Amino acid sequence: MVTVDDEGTVLPRADLLIEGRDIAGLWPADETPGEVSADETIDAEGMVAMPGLINAHTHCAMTLLRGYADDMPLQEWLERRIWPLEMRLEQEDVYWGTLLGIAEMIRSGVTCFNDMYHYFEATARAVVDSGIRANVSGVLLGFLPDAGARLEAAIDFAREWSERGGGLLVTMLGPHAPYTCPDHLLSRVIEAAREANIGVHIHVSETRKEVEDSLREFGRTPVERLRDLGLLDVSPVLAAHCVHLTESDIETLAEKRVGVCHNPGSNMKLASGTAPIPRLLAVGAVVGMGTDGPASNNNLDMMEEARLAALVHKLHSGDPTVVTAHEALAMATAGSARALGIDDRAGRIRPGLRADVVLLDFRQAHLCPLHGVVSHLIYAARAGDVRTVFVDGRPLMLDGELQTLDEQEIFGQVASRLERLV
Amino acid sequence: MVTVDDEGTVLPRADLLIEGRDIAGLWPADETPGEVSADETIDAEGMVAMPGLINAHTHCAMTLLRGYADDMPLQEWLERRIWPLEMRLEQEDVYWGTLLGIAEMIRSGVTCFNDMYHYFEATARAVVDSGIRANVSGVLLGFLPDAGARLEAAIDFAREWSERGGGLLVTMLGPHAPYTCPDHLLSRVIEAAREANIGVHIHVSETRKEVEDSLREFGRTPVERLRDLGLLDVSPVLAAHCVHLTESDIETLAEKRVGVCHNPGSNMKLASGTAPIPRLLAVGAVVGMGTDGPASNNNLDMMEEARLAALVHKLHSGDPTVVTAHEALAMATAGSARALGIDDRAGRIRPGLRADVVLLDFRQAHLCPLHGVVSHLIYAARAGDVRTVFVDGRPLMLDGELQTLDEQEIFGQVASRLERLV
Repeated sequence: MVTVDDEGTVLPRADLLIEGRDIAGLWPADETPGEVSADETIDAEGMVAMPGLINAHTHCAMTLLRGYADDMPLQEWLERRIWPLEMRLEQEDVYWGTLLGIAEMIRSGVTCFNDMYHYFEATARAVVDSGIRANVSGVLLGFLPDAGARLEAAIDFAREWSERGGGLLVTMLGPHAPYTCPDHLLSRVIEAAREANIGVHIHVSETRKEVEDSLREFGRTPVERLRDLGLLDVSPVLAAHCVHLTESDIETLAEKRVGVCHNPGSNMKLASGTAPIPRLLAVGAVVGMGTDGPASNNNLDMMEEARLAALVHKLHSGDPTVVTAHEALAMATAGSARALGIDDRAGRIRPGLRADVVLLDFRQAHLCPLHGVVSHLIYAARAGDVRTVFVDGRPLMLDGELQTLDEQEIFGQVASRLERLV
Repeated sequence: MVTVDDEGTVLPRADLLIEGRDIAGLWPADETPGEVSADETIDAEGMVAMPGLINAHTHCAMTLLRGYADDMPLQEWLERRIWPLEMRLEQEDVYWGTLLGIAEMIRSGVTCFNDMYHYFEATARAVVDSGIRANVSGVLLGFLPDAGARLEAAIDFAREWSERGGGLLVTMLGPHAPYTCPDHLLSRVIEAAREANIGVHIHVSETRKEVEDSLREFGRTPVERLRDLGLLDVSPVLAAHCVHLTESDIETLAEKRVGVCHNPGSNMKLASGTAPIPRLLAVGAVVGMGTDGPASNNNLDMMEEARLAALVHKLHSGDPTVVTAHEALAMATAGSARALGIDDRAGRIRPGLRADVVLLDFRQAHLCPLHGVVSHLIYAARAGDVRTVFVDGRPLMLDGELQTLDEQEIFGQVASRLERLV
């Protein structure tokens, strides 16, 4: 059983051929050409293959802060709990925290993630060491005293590392948000992004307060301000959250082909609000999906995220037909790939694209009977059903066993580093 | 690591003694009396013990319809898809569909469920055969031509079966909802419930339309109508959903000690609305939690349900401090036990109560690091983390292996029965 793409195509029985990094062939089981042979074969009887899930917005190393503080008002949570601990983070903490998150993501069927955090080189090293696909950017905060120097370092990183990792790694620039970045910093980001042909990853209109402050200070919404500065003409731009948008903002994001990343779990947990996803989809905007960081989620589980997306908009609109199972799955796969500008290689199971493929075990009570695969993937399955994961043609998990990471070592490193931090 | 009760008590290291059906002892690991010994020992290093989850409202045999129809308007969903298939169900379909749901629930840490469905004897047989704890009632629909005869049969069932299953089985009466039951049927339910000292399981104020219709037809809300009929003086009453309540309804439910069952997943998927759970908790109402049937969820996963409860009220209220992880866990365990009138035996890990205990494997990437057990149970863990389940002192799952049910047989029976039904 193979779910192929974001158009909802499902092949009930199929053969899938991986050659090197690529999907080399896909046939209904009875149409596979006789001359096709493989060095190794995986019998996927009772399994479902789906495109790897793409976590289009996270701060992976915040695994270190998973469950460190919950159920608190946002500012108190940030100022008293999260930021003080983050100030004590070192390069190697981020490396091991990122590896922990990558282990979790591989186990839950995520084959690519888009990260923004401190010590981006440590993140990039973890990506390369694990074999997962990722877009990586450092976080740029305008209020830091050395913001200018950090920006130049991030630009250097984005240029230098764009060639590493055998094409798995894509570098971006990560101005944190319109409200934390002054115009001159954003202008320098735009200039560097254009020169080096790299994308931008930014939080946009996450809270109502952010939009109100922007209107008061700049006379424009955050989206309008970014548009007027020219940032939305960079390609790709990944705009995370986009919860509080005007109708004009929605049209601007669609027209500029900005990648909107929907983060329903974080938006619920932090009480940020409900992003206008049905409206964005209706006007043809590019919409992907992400978990946000594991301090506000508290996991990196894209199966859960896709289910939340399918549920929360039904509740919010009062209409049980919005954000169908099919649309939720498409957002978490092909939508995220488009939003990150990597749909030339990822997001679908299609010959010619990279082999980022996940096998889930459907021979389980909670997935029985099987009236529909896509319905089950969104409304009944869970991350623990993932058994085997390929990224770029390479197996990162086989039948529940991680192939590139030593979890016991990661757990030990994380535990000893937290003794210093907490 | 043991989460003990709904007051949030956590013992970092503990010994738990089960004797026969009961929890016989619980001690911090270094305070266990020297004379305590056991015939069999489970090494739970790296595991967390929590009270068994209690699914306080479901229609378990609807596993047969899991994913059969989604993303549709409620009436069309019911009238075109669900009801036509349900009309073809037979006694043995319900038996096997219920066993399938029980297998799923045991695997996900549910030790007790409260069911309302057709062919209640088949449900009761499945409960007894599996060894799970359950409250069972038949569904009574006033518009059926033989509603009166069905009610008498349900009353007979409730009386006869209340003694079976070695105390695991509790029978109730299941008038479907105020809007599907005329006054005379509800009055007969009240009379029979009082005579036989049994409880009532009913849907209440699930949709806005139900409340509007009740106000128009009876000049009262559904809660007011049930109160005036005397139904809320029966004990226990389990009122499922309770989404659309007036402030006066909320006070009535609290004052009458009605067990409110919160079903956030179903309420989201069917776009029913958001139940006023923070308000109900604030006035001291008895609030439990359930999944509703797997046709509107689409699973029986109480871990997911508890997480949804913790998330959706933050979003709805705009306040990230409401429905804490601790409150969500309490609702899914001790709250459900109180709502079902079985808190004399279930819902907490406490000497003297029955041994309904679940072990989860916390040595996993998505549960690392461990800043707080209750936070992880609600915001990061998932049903697949459950490894071992005891009900009434009896192991129903040991290290992932079901002890009383043959899943392959269940899957086969379900598949062959669906060939006739669909």
